[in-house]
Amino acid sequence: MAQLVLVRHGQSAWNLENRFTGWWDVDLTERGVAEARAAGRALGAAGIDFDLAFASVQTRAIKTMNLLLEEMQRLWLPTVKDWRLNERHYGGLTGLDKAETAAKHGAEQVHVWRRSFDVPPPPQPHGSRYDVAGDRRYQGIAVPAAESLKDTIARVLPAYEELVVPALGAGQRVLIAAHGNSLRALVKHLSAIPDDAIVEFEIPTGVPILYTLDDKLRATDRRFLTVG
Amino acid sequence: MAQLVLVRHGQSAWNLENRFTGWWDVDLTERGVAEARAAGRALGAAGIDFDLAFASVQTRAIKTMNLLLEEMQRLWLPTVKDWRLNERHYGGLTGLDKAETAAKHGAEQVHVWRRSFDVPPPPQPHGSRYDVAGDRRYQGIAVPAAESLKDTIARVLPAYEELVVPALGAGQRVLIAAHGNSLRALVKHLSAIPDDAIVEFEIPTGVPILYTLDDKLRATDRRFLTVG
Repeated sequence: MAQLVLVRHGQSAWNLENRFTGWWDVDLTERGVAEARAAGRALGAAGIDFDLAFASVQTRAIKTMNLLLEEMQRLWLPTVKDWRLNERHYGGLTGLDKAETAAKHGAEQVHVWRRSFDVPPPPQPHGSRYDVAGDRRYQGIAVPAAESLKDTIARVLPAYEELVVPALGAGQRVLIAAHGNSLRALVKHLSAIPDDAIVEFEIPTGVPILYTLDDKLRATDRRFLTVG
Repeated sequence: MAQLVLVRHGQSAWNLENRFTGWWDVDLTERGVAEARAAGRALGAAGIDFDLAFASVQTRAIKTMNLLLEEMQRLWLPTVKDWRLNERHYGGLTGLDKAETAAKHGAEQVHVWRRSFDVPPPPQPHGSRYDVAGDRRYQGIAVPAAESLKDTIARVLPAYEELVVPALGAGQRVLIAAHGNSLRALVKHLSAIPDDAIVEFEIPTGVPILYTLDDKLRATDRRFLTVG
């Protein structure tokens, strides 16, 4: 039996502004900071503890992890950051207002981009102000021009297999702080959710998902923690 | 040529209260948080960058590292926490008010405990409320009953050789966020400072020490960064 907790970062500036974010490195809002701290307190109050924590290389996930661990008095735990836990790359939609995009392209098209399993959004134009390819943290990585959820899954799962599975197998209690779509990848895998259902699976910000896994690391229990 | 930056954590609650802290896990004050952020901004403004960051397993050092990296927009860097970078263990003095201790034992005796090279303070009594031996972060570690600066050096330097030297040798720019005495250990080593001089070497909170090292990792330059 293994214990794995997933948490989506607290509210970000662009969650609040309703803009497509993807790999753009937006910070938490004050509310997002409070959500991360509340998640940590709720985990502590529920008697949950960790041995190891993971985050993407995006500030909003790392800060969520750090604030949550601070509230649990567990800042001293080893932490690992990996770009493969990043949010889905939203391509040419990055930075756009979701309502404006719907007005321009039609709600139906935006729904396809947001909620289809294997249709990527339009690619990010070269030289876009939201292009992160020149960012030092992505040195040596082929930054995608856009990703579908399927593409996202294809890089999240190898990171899970390589980094998380051995830790769980060794009996370590693991926390992963990441993003709506990189966490969908994990939920789909752990709970064996079909393609058409996972796109509708909503993960609220700052609400830990508690997984109990069997010896083969398949979910025997999954629940959202109640955060005060 | 290698670049190494040392920073003592920002003001802690017990720095402010003038109490011996050692391994007790005291948090930063508001001023300490501001000091850590200011250090990060000053490093960024000076064009200094990092590839890897280290801290002790004590909250005040980890938060200093995290806040500093956040201000530099470098939260995504790999970070390593190691107990061997902890503050000197102050033994039976842990938790005591420095002025009260001087009134009780004499200023001369307290000066010996604080500033001698190889005289440890009295051992921490078993069952002291400030005994950290039962803390999970020290599982498998022989927590000392008290340390002299010499004892502190004896566990800081192996961590430096094992973790930091290979990184510097590989050309990585390294940050270490730690404590007055664990940093004295490093300054003594890097700048070849004699036993009787290192005990008087004062390291202010939140002021980065910039080291330039030659190919043999001996200091060619050492200076305090001016923080706003």
